[in-house]
Amino acid sequence: MTLGRFIAFEGGEGVGKSTQARLLAEALEAEGKTVLLTREPGGTDGAEAIRTLLLDPPGEGWGARAEALLFAAARSDHVERLVRPGLERGDWVVSDRFIDSSRAYQGFAGGLGDDAIRTLHELGSEGLRPDLTIVLEAPAERIAERLARRDGGTADAIGGRDGDYHARVNAAFRTIAREDPDRFVVIASDATPAEVHARIVEAVTDRLGLRG
Amino acid sequence: MTLGRFIAFEGGEGVGKSTQARLLAEALEAEGKTVLLTREPGGTDGAEAIRTLLLDPPGEGWGARAEALLFAAARSDHVERLVRPGLERGDWVVSDRFIDSSRAYQGFAGGLGDDAIRTLHELGSEGLRPDLTIVLEAPAERIAERLARRDGGTADAIGGRDGDYHARVNAAFRTIAREDPDRFVVIASDATPAEVHARIVEAVTDRLGLRG
Repeated sequence: MTLGRFIAFEGGEGVGKSTQARLLAEALEAEGKTVLLTREPGGTDGAEAIRTLLLDPPGEGWGARAEALLFAAARSDHVERLVRPGLERGDWVVSDRFIDSSRAYQGFAGGLGDDAIRTLHELGSEGLRPDLTIVLEAPAERIAERLARRDGGTADAIGGRDGDYHARVNAAFRTIAREDPDRFVVIASDATPAEVHARIVEAVTDRLGLRG
Repeated sequence: MTLGRFIAFEGGEGVGKSTQARLLAEALEAEGKTVLLTREPGGTDGAEAIRTLLLDPPGEGWGARAEALLFAAARSDHVERLVRPGLERGDWVVSDRFIDSSRAYQGFAGGLGDDAIRTLHELGSEGLRPDLTIVLEAPAERIAERLARRDGGTADAIGGRDGDYHARVNAAFRTIAREDPDRFVVIASDATPAEVHARIVEAVTDRLGLRG
């Protein structure tokens, strides 16, 4: 049994997930919760080492299958060493990305399929799901503009993929969220960070009883 | 369709797999074959980077699930970039360890179960199996003696596990080999390297028609 609450932020590149995860963690702490703010891939020493391999691959870059397995390995370490112990202590865990990123990126956009990603998650992390998953969504033209700006060479091995790939990622997040409305809330990020944060706090209060 | 032949060496720690893989590769070359001598985990830049994480883990060491996923990721890269292209060109591929090490170490000895490991291999490498798998087997007392000698601190994160673990690994290889006699041959390694090599050449000739 887990006493804590688990909230994940999801969405494509540059929609403000890290900023909003941090703002939510601060708001939860102000409400007296013990908060564990973390990210994927990463969050533990082992998973951060895998993150480095994923975002800056040695050799020719990973194939879709190896990439999905590496994400599942990083998540397994993250869940076993950090997320699950936090939830068992009663913490509120806030993660910048979780399983639904693997579903959108490797499963839908990368072509491996959703069943394969779910199977890997079952084997790696016993299928752990967040209590609430917040998908941040930006208008398509803003995403395209940001991706174009990244083409200067600073992008990592995944963020630097072409516009078609990222369009499939964003479509996948909408599909995934629509199929499970109890676990997901989609929030438009076309506003100031403070305004988006206010929308998120409202959703968390509504869904998880923040002041309960 | 693959034109080449794929031979894997398996067995516990210190039974002479690397030496015998090399001797077999040389014998095959002397017969005029094009040989690709490789090893697991490793064999490609990506898989060798994962090997480093596996044998010298950052942080607290990998849990059984993360470890199995990392082995599957390394194998996926190895198969996609090296083994399958070699087989498609018509090479004879000789690998020091392959899927049956994951079955024996992570599946049986590590407690994840054989089904989980087979599922990971299907997802990672489309279930590729060697044409012939040679299990080298040493007498139990010789294995115990070698493992005791390794306790000095030079062992890696897997080789350095306790005697019970390695006893389960060795028992698992016997079980796996017995269940699939068409693919496996078990060869006793309690002889000189040259004598063991002669037994291996005989088995390969018999099974794969070395001089065919």
